[in-house]
Amino acid sequence: MGSVFDEKDFLASCGSTKFSNNMVAAGPFSTLQDAIQAARDIWFNKVDVNGWLEAFAAHPQIGQTPSRDHKSPTFAQWSKGEQSTAMSTATEVTLQELVQWNARYREKFGFVFLICASGRSTPEILTELKIRYQNRPIIEFEIAAQEQMKITELRLAKLFSNNVDTASAIKS
Amino acid sequence: MGSVFDEKDFLASCGSTKFSNNMVAAGPFSTLQDAIQAARDIWFNKVDVNGWLEAFAAHPQIGQTPSRDHKSPTFAQWSKGEQSTAMSTATEVTLQELVQWNARYREKFGFVFLICASGRSTPEILTELKIRYQNRPIIEFEIAAQEQMKITELRLAKLFSNNVDTASAIKS
Repeated sequence: MGSVFDEKDFLASCGSTKFSNNMVAAGPFSTLQDAIQAARDIWFNKVDVNGWLEAFAAHPQIGQTPSRDHKSPTFAQWSKGEQSTAMSTATEVTLQELVQWNARYREKFGFVFLICASGRSTPEILTELKIRYQNRPIIEFEIAAQEQMKITELRLAKLFSNNVDTASAIKS
Repeated sequence: MGSVFDEKDFLASCGSTKFSNNMVAAGPFSTLQDAIQAARDIWFNKVDVNGWLEAFAAHPQIGQTPSRDHKSPTFAQWSKGEQSTAMSTATEVTLQELVQWNARYREKFGFVFLICASGRSTPEILTELKIRYQNRPIIEFEIAAQEQMKITELRLAKLFSNNVDTASAIKS
C-alpha cells in the first residue's frame, strides 16, 4: 500500500531530506496523531545535525517573504501564512529592528532565527529573539530544533486537513 | 604585543577557523592554564555548530592515517601520535571492525567518530564507539565536542612545551 503523502508533502512540513524520506518509509499514517508521533521520533532520534541545519536553511528570515524560487512552493506559502500575525503587527521601525537582530543572530549561531510564529506579534518575536540570542550555540541549536518540530506539527495538521478524504480511505 | 602563537598553531590544536581566530584575539597567554581557560570559553560559548562540524572534519577516521595533504601538517602529525597506542594494539580483525563501525557511525551522525585516543587501545575504542552509537544525534554531537576539547587541551600543552622559551619571555 502506498503512502498518501509523498516526499514532496513532507518536505513542505520540514526541509530535511532525511526527515522526509523516513516519513515516507514510516507511513502511511491512519491519523494525524500517528504521523506526529513518527515525525517526533524521526526528527529527534534519526535526523542528524546536518539534517537539522538543512531544515533550518529552508526557512526565510522572520519578517521576510520566502524567495520566489523556493524548492517547495507549499513550504513558501505556509511560511507566509504563519507570519501573517507578525506582519500585521509590524511597523517600519520594528521590522527594521527584526532585520538587524536576525543578522546578529545568524552571525552568532550560523543559522536563521527559527520560531513557531503562528499567532505571534512582531514585538513578541523580537523579545524572544533577544532572549535567545544570549544562549550558548549548542543550547540554541536544540531550541531551534524544538521550534522546527512545532512548525512541522502545524504543517502536518494542514496536510491531513487538506487530504481528509484520502486519509479516511486508509482506515477503511 | 603580538601573540606567541598564530592562527596556524591554534588550527593544529582544533580545526575550527572561528576557534583559531578567537584564540589569537584572546592571546597572548602567559600560561598554559590561561590558554586552556580561554579555549574552553571560545569552544563552548562562541564557536557555532558549523564551527564544531568544521573542527570534526579535520580529523581522520580512528585507525586511519591523516591524508598527506592535510591543511595542517602539525595536526596530521599529532593525530598520528595520539593514535599510536590504538595502532600498536590493533589486529587485522579489530582494525577491520573499526573501519566498519566508523562507517556506521558516520552514516548515522554525519560526522567522523571523535575520541581523545591518547593511551587508548583499539578494543577500548571499539567498545566506546559501539556504546556511543546508541545515542541521539544531538547528544552525540555534544559528546564529540567534549572529546574535541580534550584533544585540544593536550595539543595546547604540546604547543606550550614546544615554545617554553618564548612563552617564558612573555611573563618577564
